[in-house]
Amino acid sequence: MAEQLDSFLQGSWRAGEGAPTPLVNPATEATIATVRAIQGSLADALRHGREVGGPALRAMSFAERGELLERIAKLVHEQREHLIDVAVANGGNTRGDAKFDIDGGIAVLAHYAELAKTMGREPWLALDEAEPIFRNSKIRAGHVLVPRHGVAIHINAFNFPAWGMLGKAAVSLLAGMPVLCKPATSTAHLAHRIVQLMVEREILPAGSFQLLMGSAGDLLDHVGPQDVIAFTGSQGVGIQIKTHPVVVARGTRVNLEADSLNAVVIGPDVDGELFDLVIRDLVVELTQKAGQKCTATRRVLVPEALFERVRDTLVERLADLKIGDPSDKAVRMGPLSSAAQLADARKGIELLQQDAELLRGDPRRSEGFVGVAPERGYFLEPIVLVAKPERVAAPDAAFHQHEVFGPVTTLLRYDGSIAAAAKLLALGQGSLVGTVYADDREWLRSAIAELGPWLGRLVIASEKFAGASMSPGCVFPVANHGGPGRAGGGEELGGRFGLALYMQRVALQSGASQLAKLLEGK
Amino acid sequence: MAEQLDSFLQGSWRAGEGAPTPLVNPATEATIATVRAIQGSLADALRHGREVGGPALRAMSFAERGELLERIAKLVHEQREHLIDVAVANGGNTRGDAKFDIDGGIAVLAHYAELAKTMGREPWLALDEAEPIFRNSKIRAGHVLVPRHGVAIHINAFNFPAWGMLGKAAVSLLAGMPVLCKPATSTAHLAHRIVQLMVEREILPAGSFQLLMGSAGDLLDHVGPQDVIAFTGSQGVGIQIKTHPVVVARGTRVNLEADSLNAVVIGPDVDGELFDLVIRDLVVELTQKAGQKCTATRRVLVPEALFERVRDTLVERLADLKIGDPSDKAVRMGPLSSAAQLADARKGIELLQQDAELLRGDPRRSEGFVGVAPERGYFLEPIVLVAKPERVAAPDAAFHQHEVFGPVTTLLRYDGSIAAAAKLLALGQGSLVGTVYADDREWLRSAIAELGPWLGRLVIASEKFAGASMSPGCVFPVANHGGPGRAGGGEELGGRFGLALYMQRVALQSGASQLAKLLEGK
Repeated sequence: MAEQLDSFLQGSWRAGEGAPTPLVNPATEATIATVRAIQGSLADALRHGREVGGPALRAMSFAERGELLERIAKLVHEQREHLIDVAVANGGNTRGDAKFDIDGGIAVLAHYAELAKTMGREPWLALDEAEPIFRNSKIRAGHVLVPRHGVAIHINAFNFPAWGMLGKAAVSLLAGMPVLCKPATSTAHLAHRIVQLMVEREILPAGSFQLLMGSAGDLLDHVGPQDVIAFTGSQGVGIQIKTHPVVVARGTRVNLEADSLNAVVIGPDVDGELFDLVIRDLVVELTQKAGQKCTATRRVLVPEALFERVRDTLVERLADLKIGDPSDKAVRMGPLSSAAQLADARKGIELLQQDAELLRGDPRRSEGFVGVAPERGYFLEPIVLVAKPERVAAPDAAFHQHEVFGPVTTLLRYDGSIAAAAKLLALGQGSLVGTVYADDREWLRSAIAELGPWLGRLVIASEKFAGASMSPGCVFPVANHGGPGRAGGGEELGGRFGLALYMQRVALQSGASQLAKLLEGK
Repeated sequence: MAEQLDSFLQGSWRAGEGAPTPLVNPATEATIATVRAIQGSLADALRHGREVGGPALRAMSFAERGELLERIAKLVHEQREHLIDVAVANGGNTRGDAKFDIDGGIAVLAHYAELAKTMGREPWLALDEAEPIFRNSKIRAGHVLVPRHGVAIHINAFNFPAWGMLGKAAVSLLAGMPVLCKPATSTAHLAHRIVQLMVEREILPAGSFQLLMGSAGDLLDHVGPQDVIAFTGSQGVGIQIKTHPVVVARGTRVNLEADSLNAVVIGPDVDGELFDLVIRDLVVELTQKAGQKCTATRRVLVPEALFERVRDTLVERLADLKIGDPSDKAVRMGPLSSAAQLADARKGIELLQQDAELLRGDPRRSEGFVGVAPERGYFLEPIVLVAKPERVAAPDAAFHQHEVFGPVTTLLRYDGSIAAAAKLLALGQGSLVGTVYADDREWLRSAIAELGPWLGRLVIASEKFAGASMSPGCVFPVANHGGPGRAGGGEELGGRFGLALYMQRVALQSGASQLAKLLEGK
């Protein structure tokens, strides 16, 4: 019988009472484990986090909390091979995909553990030098961040069960907020396994980390003004959370990372090594995690003069891609994570085809995948479309409106100017990441000003450091993750900035010397 | 006939078509002017802001935009006497109240004008030093703020027609975002007059400032992902804005300043000059603007041992307060701003009386006000209540749940510990400002950690600088304004921090030297 993955709530493992949901291997469709949702109220779990976990974390210094992160990072690193196997089986991940997820989680933990060492001994973080409240006043005001007294509710996406959970947890734990993590069910085996290991080793203080398997139940009915909800997933669910009556009435802080029609803008001067980088990045973003990344490239803006070269090279590079069961080490791209995702992606491609021509890939292909029987598994080969010229700048064109969450991208012709690129990029209504490839510095400076407002992160790639450049979908803990508008308006990571989500910025107003003494401590 | 106050949209004055709403003098009930709402769509006004105002502002440097603020500040200062008269007549303000509002607006303009001079020549603000994306990488990531490409929609409260409008405008204009300002109708004469003066002098570039009189019409149906809505007012309207389907679907950024049950915590060691300051501040917060300030003190936590002394001194100090028509210079407190506000406050006091005893003041008093005929004007004398001992710590007690927007405050007994104070303060579910009066440094340090998470600003007053301390309801541009939870979760002002509301924080990821060159400019 398949293992049942229990929730870890109020300090103990708790079996759900809901109907069992199978977790499957998306390459073979074999059942790996089952999850049963908690049917009772989750009010007590939130209270446990607030009353037990919060005080325990806040009793520690930033440095001590950083040590917790270090210990989690070490544990995950030590169990890496085992965890990769879990990710390959339940996530449809290639080994490379699994490492990207797991090592990404370790990287965030390690970054914040390192940052913790620089954060001083006070129970707050000073943000600025206090200034007189008006000219010549003896009274000054300065700002500090203090940990919020609630629970950090992390509702994670199916695509990064390790990175999503560990990355969000690293930041909240360091900030001093206990976590209640609800992974997406379909790929939750990896998250569950990591939490099992953390609990076995007793790394975290009681109440500071809870795991909720299956549906969120009545969780949102019990949130309060000091809780934080950090959600990664679809815009639809994001909107449900944001407009939930209790969330709204209590003023619970919400951070969303939702849909994102990330664009790449190829500059008119791209050539040589930079051209190779463009193609390499496009292939990575199309195939890594089978394109199931919120930062994957969905729209590629190609200058007219380069269009045929980009198109043909990309298609050629994709020709010998090995797709199949990711437990076979020769395979470079695995399946989508579930039957529902595959159905959704296929429907999305049909939508895109109203405004774009299919250039490469058969959305219905269901055989010839390495190590997989025909009609088995949730495979989708890479799909490249070309926007119909008359639809390129249409605000309602599907490629500007609808994210297909799989190995799917659309090429759009443009005139090579930043003005035109900015207009097209803006039709996506806000994205997590945008990328520009160019050497012309004036062109790049306009890109910062004109594309920047629509983005959470702008990757600027030039010839000189093309070899060192990282593909845009890779998220680093030092850089902001989150974008405006459709992307949800969230802000996560970004080094120190990321802590603000879990803390309250409070202005302290007092006499100059009193303030200095209070902030310095004894 | 009363003057009709038109809207200023798309570069010209536009008469509304709605039924005329009278603006009255709340002391005499005489009609001063009328407002008629725009009936047509406001989509074009927003487009005008985005397409004309935004580019014009962004073509200027921060320093140049700062000069605009300076010119507005000078104009308001030059017209100060005239504007005070307008505020006294339409706002029910005493001269002191009117100055507080108008000079407050000037102060924000002046502060940001000064700040502008330090902001460099680039079209963005650098926020940090770029860091390697991982150890030894040649690629770095740093963060900048770039102006958003939308309109800043300012929906202001009736209590500060000058400060509310000018303060919000100062920050957005400096950030590079055009403004569409909708003042609260009942006291809009002052805002309208200031805009008239600004338009006459042609201070601002076309499209960068629009004024919408009357209702917001269909404004929210046309917001986009780059727009920002900054709202100050009641929680109910705040929730309507936050959950408006278009606001939510487009991911429009929303900043709310809503209800706030601001608390004052009197330390057990308060005596001498600090005791006098407590009483002085309580009187100011109760009577200034007739208590119609979102930062006014609604709950006063008094240690048992000090209770009678605080209660009796406060009541005594209020005994000879002159209430009446504020055009009489002897008057220290004017009426509430409208009949609706008075009715609302009276209803609220009834609610409070379920959980508190009326100590001082008659909510129904309607005569004996200086220079006012009986039964005329919207007067409410200062009301002080004392929480029933058994209701002090009840989460559902009205004084923890319901803000009465007038000269109304409730005294609560507590044991003098920060632990107890924190529990009571938290029952307010998040406030704009909290205040502690004490000298004990350990007690004050706990206050920062334990009260801080519930506040946007914490005022710390001690004996040594009691003479210089400013009453907590006074908001300074250097300090954050906005609080968690019930207070709306917003963040405004706070010097440089305030600009972030109107800008997008974007991580720039590129080669180390390329990034440095791009950010420095030529």
